[in-house]
Amino acid sequence: MDTERRALTENVYLARACELALRGAGSTSPNPCVGAVIVRDGVTLGEGFHRIRGGPHAEREALADAAARKHDVRGATLAVSLEPCNHHGMTPPCTDAILEAGITRVAIGARDPNPKTNGAGIARLREGGIDVQLYDDPRALEIVEPFAVRTLGGRPYVTLKMAASLDGYVAPRPGSHWLTGEAVRERVRELRIAHDAVMVGAGTVRVDDPQLTVRPPHARRRDYVRVVVCEDAPVPPSSRIFESLPGYARTIVLAPGGARSRFAGLESVAACIFAGDGARLDLREALAALGTAGISSVLCEGGPTFAAGLLAGGLVDRLVWVVAPTFLANEEAIPAIAQSIGVNERFSFDSFERVGEDLWLTAKPRRNV
Amino acid sequence: MDTERRALTENVYLARACELALRGAGSTSPNPCVGAVIVRDGVTLGEGFHRIRGGPHAEREALADAAARKHDVRGATLAVSLEPCNHHGMTPPCTDAILEAGITRVAIGARDPNPKTNGAGIARLREGGIDVQLYDDPRALEIVEPFAVRTLGGRPYVTLKMAASLDGYVAPRPGSHWLTGEAVRERVRELRIAHDAVMVGAGTVRVDDPQLTVRPPHARRRDYVRVVVCEDAPVPPSSRIFESLPGYARTIVLAPGGARSRFAGLESVAACIFAGDGARLDLREALAALGTAGISSVLCEGGPTFAAGLLAGGLVDRLVWVVAPTFLANEEAIPAIAQSIGVNERFSFDSFERVGEDLWLTAKPRRNV
Repeated sequence: MDTERRALTENVYLARACELALRGAGSTSPNPCVGAVIVRDGVTLGEGFHRIRGGPHAEREALADAAARKHDVRGATLAVSLEPCNHHGMTPPCTDAILEAGITRVAIGARDPNPKTNGAGIARLREGGIDVQLYDDPRALEIVEPFAVRTLGGRPYVTLKMAASLDGYVAPRPGSHWLTGEAVRERVRELRIAHDAVMVGAGTVRVDDPQLTVRPPHARRRDYVRVVVCEDAPVPPSSRIFESLPGYARTIVLAPGGARSRFAGLESVAACIFAGDGARLDLREALAALGTAGISSVLCEGGPTFAAGLLAGGLVDRLVWVVAPTFLANEEAIPAIAQSIGVNERFSFDSFERVGEDLWLTAKPRRNV
Repeated sequence: MDTERRALTENVYLARACELALRGAGSTSPNPCVGAVIVRDGVTLGEGFHRIRGGPHAEREALADAAARKHDVRGATLAVSLEPCNHHGMTPPCTDAILEAGITRVAIGARDPNPKTNGAGIARLREGGIDVQLYDDPRALEIVEPFAVRTLGGRPYVTLKMAASLDGYVAPRPGSHWLTGEAVRERVRELRIAHDAVMVGAGTVRVDDPQLTVRPPHARRRDYVRVVVCEDAPVPPSSRIFESLPGYARTIVLAPGGARSRFAGLESVAACIFAGDGARLDLREALAALGTAGISSVLCEGGPTFAAGLLAGGLVDRLVWVVAPTFLANEEAIPAIAQSIGVNERFSFDSFERVGEDLWLTAKPRRNV
């Protein structure tokens, strides 16, 4: 098979590997989602994905699937969304399993983003005589992006999701809801499932008192985590976000270390994490503390002050901006971004789609493009 | 040919008729743009479009084209974007020409929106023995929409074009420009060409002093018209919008009749149109006065106060909203919509496209959907 034709074929297998990878969304953290396919002469011999942290990696799942189907994988091609690991972690190195199985070609979607380990898997496979092709596949890179940010940036991956009118307001007055339609709410549900934690600012809890649950319920292998970001004042312990629910971890309150005494009333209903020793919260420190607590990705859903802080700090890795086809300008209207963000960081749109009556835009900061 | 197959074929001819129609964009006002194709057995015999008010209609242009090419059109099909006229205006009825030529089938994209004349063309053709099909083609309806609004609404068709950041600001501070990229400016040029007039509010003239010309120049058969909408205070006579330029009519100042005396200083540089007799401008009255002055469509390019007035008055027929992938929230930033618009009119997105780095959204008010 000539090189160009092989690349076209392997592009299809990598698409399938990425599709499989996403079946683990929400359950693999802090590991990335990974999917793998084993094929020979156009026939799929085995498929697998990483289901849960501590469980087998995608490559071993695919090999086990092929074995269960009584397929001989010697001489076959493995397409895997992420570079196979070459180190002993919670499971033995995948490179060993691939070599032992007699796989002769490996098509990789994205390199391991961890600078301590990347390239080692590829080198080991090549030493073992395997023909390895690294594709830098856009779908595979997108799947591993949150993992890369966490690994390289020392903090969780941050998605900021806001829904605003054309003129940039989130609501016509405090406490009013449902600017966007049902179809958007279904999409937001998917985002909540895919992120380790959902975060909102204290103002949103005080004014809107959201529950921030996934509705209708979706069982994931990892508890859902809800986080409230406080500046110097606590939120009421009776807020709905603190209600104890099956499948949900104890809600986290992120608060400034210098204002610790004010948060005593919340310690019975929430896990309080204190960051820094200032009287006001440093968001970068707070996110780092959240990372230390095992949170790899967060979906930030406002409000305006929290969103402005994230943008001003250059802490947004992906923007999901939903535009409702209306105008809300009036004296009571709540702006999407509450205050000066001090910087003029430009983003780059990477997708846009009509969802119901609204537009669903996604963008990345230019620094990451 | 069965009905379904014929509809598919005629859909293609109507697409071509609409394409031809748009060649007259900017030149036919107050007539709509119309295009026509004459075909038989898959062969195009003649094509034409309405080039300029007072000149031949599209149907006669297509018949003349077929004659010039020495084609016999007897028994052929005419596809025309708009219902042929059956009345004596500046030219004789097209229905007569179609019947005399021996055309036996007419495919029509959109009915004449004028309630005084609509249906008459179709009826006359059928009386003459022609097989007529009205398609309600979306492209043809969109082309005739400005004409329909002017005919039925007693005022020019209003397109509001704004460019804003994600958080709804048009500029980081007064007088700053170029929020959006070069590709957007090229698209705005096309909008200026397609509308009879370009309008801005007085505040924009005072702060930004725009020239509002079409650059690079585009010769159109009708002079360009620029309009400044004033509340109760005039703008400086030295403003660039009043510069006399070839291909541009004398700039119009729309002002409240009750404040007429204050505008004396502008009468030497502009055509002042006074609407109503109040001290402040009623935008609906002002637009009606503009219609009386022969303007059928206007492109409104801000600023925030004028845009808010149009939206509050339910006077926007088409919205072009360009989103730059950035945030501008700060105390000096200029909001896209300056004040309470008093109503919460919802729009319906009908297109979205990435233009350069920006997003180009279009929407219609729900009342027109």
